[in-house]
Amino acid sequence: MIGAVAGVVYIVGAGPGDPELITVRGRRMLRRSDVVVYDRLVHPALVRRARAGAERIFVGKRPGHGIRQEAINALLIDRARRGLRVTRLKGGDPFVFGRGGEEAEALRAAGVRFEIVPGITSAVAVPAYAGIPVTHRRLGSAFAVVTGHECAGASDLDWTALARIPTLVVLMGHRALRAIAARLLTEGISPATPAAVVSRGTTPDQRTVVSTISGIATAAARAGLAAPSILIVGEVARLHGALEWFTPAGGLETAVDPAAVPLRQRP
Amino acid sequence: MIGAVAGVVYIVGAGPGDPELITVRGRRMLRRSDVVVYDRLVHPALVRRARAGAERIFVGKRPGHGIRQEAINALLIDRARRGLRVTRLKGGDPFVFGRGGEEAEALRAAGVRFEIVPGITSAVAVPAYAGIPVTHRRLGSAFAVVTGHECAGASDLDWTALARIPTLVVLMGHRALRAIAARLLTEGISPATPAAVVSRGTTPDQRTVVSTISGIATAAARAGLAAPSILIVGEVARLHGALEWFTPAGGLETAVDPAAVPLRQRP
Repeated sequence: MIGAVAGVVYIVGAGPGDPELITVRGRRMLRRSDVVVYDRLVHPALVRRARAGAERIFVGKRPGHGIRQEAINALLIDRARRGLRVTRLKGGDPFVFGRGGEEAEALRAAGVRFEIVPGITSAVAVPAYAGIPVTHRRLGSAFAVVTGHECAGASDLDWTALARIPTLVVLMGHRALRAIAARLLTEGISPATPAAVVSRGTTPDQRTVVSTISGIATAAARAGLAAPSILIVGEVARLHGALEWFTPAGGLETAVDPAAVPLRQRP
Repeated sequence: MIGAVAGVVYIVGAGPGDPELITVRGRRMLRRSDVVVYDRLVHPALVRRARAGAERIFVGKRPGHGIRQEAINALLIDRARRGLRVTRLKGGDPFVFGRGGEEAEALRAAGVRFEIVPGITSAVAVPAYAGIPVTHRRLGSAFAVVTGHECAGASDLDWTALARIPTLVVLMGHRALRAIAARLLTEGISPATPAAVVSRGTTPDQRTVVSTISGIATAAARAGLAAPSILIVGEVARLHGALEWFTPAGGLETAVDPAAVPLRQRP
């Protein structure tokens, strides 16, 4: 600890949606905090879990909107410097595309003590809630995770390499779905590679569409899937048909692309 | 649900080591279960959390030892068919190299109802406990996860592609560390690429060694790091020096390879 600051910031992953998927440690830190600073995708039930009288600050960010990262950093530092216990509650895991690293850097630079409480990442849990294991002894011996934002022309990401990983999980790719699929096809991925889109995973509104990488964008659009959604590309996506288990509020509502009938077979 | 079976199996991720990193849902399912079937890397405190009178069955597997997967599947099916609630407690996340997919397939084939309760995967949480975010806006826009077992000659994994992903996390790679580093160097990764090994992450025995990919095997051997350990390869490994925060029981014990002094600089 640098400097004489008594406060602390717990950077806590809230998990993928279902409020019961926070960790025991995360919930304990939340309950003991004087201040909760939370994002848009954090379940309201978790924010209510903070103790009575705790200051609750919404810093929800949408692309191009909301509070800038620098302002969030300044807020965390300010409250900790007042000697308060702060929970910074972020959707998913704070170190998986959550800018938790940047917040930790700002806190360290300011001499504010922090702890990281990992969260269940959507990259693994949302496929799991659709019956899709990101790895499988026969079907996928490695997985990679990326965001759809990286599909823009400015990205320096190596899509040639990504197209060759057995299971590829794309977070925040809802609007870029067609571009991502096209990019993978350009990189030589087989058009018959299974692909799934899971919308609002782990919540009562979860919906899943399964197709091939060449058909997934059209199938997802036809089904009217809403953001946020996660794209899974690879043989493991076939397992959805065999391993689907989660029953959302409205019952199972799965669209399997009729053009991809072989997907229904057990591998 | 196929067949008239009243039992259920909860396939629960226990998390990476720290018993507080189980989810609230996982702990709830554990407490309500009649039977707990658990692996070697599950913390004893979690097994004790099961209700008094619950049957506790250890099926710890070491490579070449322990109970075969088919026997575990048969055990789960047997207890569920007796109408019991079974928690299948697995280290990390059940769908990240945990054979949870295979167990779910066996249960589905037997007509036994199951649910998946994701766990905090070591692939993300262990680096986090060493101050290493697997992604970072400036330093790593994608990550891939693989096991060290895949480094054997029989592996059909595309190491050329893996070497080109910004952050590579290798689980269960302790014994194969030197071979993995050599393979990545053969695939053209820069010898100066930062690399970290975290031993027994999130536990009181956590230890971290940081070096370059060319020096990491020797540095880890010199420090006498014990299995299980996780290897992180990529620019994000530099952040350990700046973001280290977790204090194990014996205090911070970090070996930074003296040949890798630039790693100590803030990126």
